[in-house]
Amino acid sequence: MPKIVDHAERRREVLDATWRVIARAGLDAATTRAIAEEAGYSIGVLTHYFSDKQDILVSAHRLAFARARDRILVATRDSAGVTALRLAMLEALPLDDERFVEAQVDVSFLGQSVGNAYLRGIRSASYEGSRRLWRGFLDQAAAAGELAEDADLPRLVDDVVGMVDSLSIQAIVDPGHMTPDHQVLLVDRFLERIARTAR
Amino acid sequence: MPKIVDHAERRREVLDATWRVIARAGLDAATTRAIAEEAGYSIGVLTHYFSDKQDILVSAHRLAFARARDRILVATRDSAGVTALRLAMLEALPLDDERFVEAQVDVSFLGQSVGNAYLRGIRSASYEGSRRLWRGFLDQAAAAGELAEDADLPRLVDDVVGMVDSLSIQAIVDPGHMTPDHQVLLVDRFLERIARTAR
Repeated sequence: MPKIVDHAERRREVLDATWRVIARAGLDAATTRAIAEEAGYSIGVLTHYFSDKQDILVSAHRLAFARARDRILVATRDSAGVTALRLAMLEALPLDDERFVEAQVDVSFLGQSVGNAYLRGIRSASYEGSRRLWRGFLDQAAAAGELAEDADLPRLVDDVVGMVDSLSIQAIVDPGHMTPDHQVLLVDRFLERIARTAR
Repeated sequence: MPKIVDHAERRREVLDATWRVIARAGLDAATTRAIAEEAGYSIGVLTHYFSDKQDILVSAHRLAFARARDRILVATRDSAGVTALRLAMLEALPLDDERFVEAQVDVSFLGQSVGNAYLRGIRSASYEGSRRLWRGFLDQAAAAGELAEDADLPRLVDDVVGMVDSLSIQAIVDPGHMTPDHQVLLVDRFLERIARTAR
C-alpha cells in the first residue's frame, strides 16, 4: 500500500523552500532544481505538485498573502477601528524575519509581473483582497467616530495599501534606514494624521 | 577613416530599446539578443557598450533616475516650497507613457534586487539621491512657513519617497484603479495634509 502523503503539507514545504531561495538569492536563482534541493526532494516530486516555475511563484505569492491575512485576523480578534487597523498594518509589515521573507517574495513577484499580464492579474486580485480588509477596519473606525465625518474612505484605503507596499520596499532596499522601529514610527504618524482630522 | 560614432548617443539608443523590451515583456525577456534586435544592432555592438545584462539593467535604472531628476529640475525652475514639491512629485509619477515605462523599469529593477546585494546598493544610492532632492523642497517649504514649525522633515521625506513608489506600483498592477487623475488626487490630498498641520 502506498504511503499516504499529506499533499497540502508537502506543497507547503516546497513553497517554504521557494521562499528561502528567493530571499537568499533572488527570483532568477529560484529554479526548479534549486527549490528541489532546498526542499530535499527530487525534481520529479516537485513537478508532481506544481506545473512550472510560474505556478510555484504564484503559489508562493498566494501563500504569502493568505498568511498575512490570517495573522491579521488573529491579531485583531479582540479590537476594532483604528486600534485594529494599527495592529493589522504592523502584521503586514516586515518587522521580523518571517515577514521580511514574505516581503521579499512579494517584491520579487511584483518585479516579475511587469510585462506579464497573468501575474499582474494575480497581484491585482491580492490588492482587491487587501483593500476589502483595510476598508473593514476603516469602516469600523468611521462608525466609532474615530475619523472625520467627511473622511474619504476609499482614498484612505489607497493610503494604507501604499504605506504597506512602500515601507516593505524600503525595508528591503535600505534595511539600515527603514528599520522595524522606523516602520512602526511612520505607521503611528500616519494614524495620528488620519485621526487628527477627526477633531 | 572610421565613422565617428557618438558613444553616449548609442548607449542611450540601446537603453531605450531595453526599456521598451522590459515594459512590453518583463525583465526575463530582456535578453541581450532581444535588446539588440529591438535596437537594430548586432549583439557584437551591444557587447561593445555593455559588459553584461546586469550592466544594461543598472544603466537603464540610472538613466531612469537621471531623466526623472532632470525633468524635476526643469519643472521646478520657477517655483519653490510646496508648489515645487507638487510639481516634482508629479514629474516622478507614471502620468504619461514615457514615465509609465520608467516606472516599469524601476519596479523590474526593484524585484531583481531582492537577493542581489549589488543591485540593492545601486537602488539604495538612487534613494539617497531622491531623498536629498525631496528634502530640498521640504526645507524651502519649511523656511517659507508652509509647514508646521515642528514638522519632522526626515519623516516627510520618507512619506514622499513611499508615495512615489507606491503610486507607481499600483499604477503598474492596477492601471484601471490607479489612473493618472487618481495619482494626482492622492498627491494633492497628501500635500493638503502636510500643509494643514501648519495652521
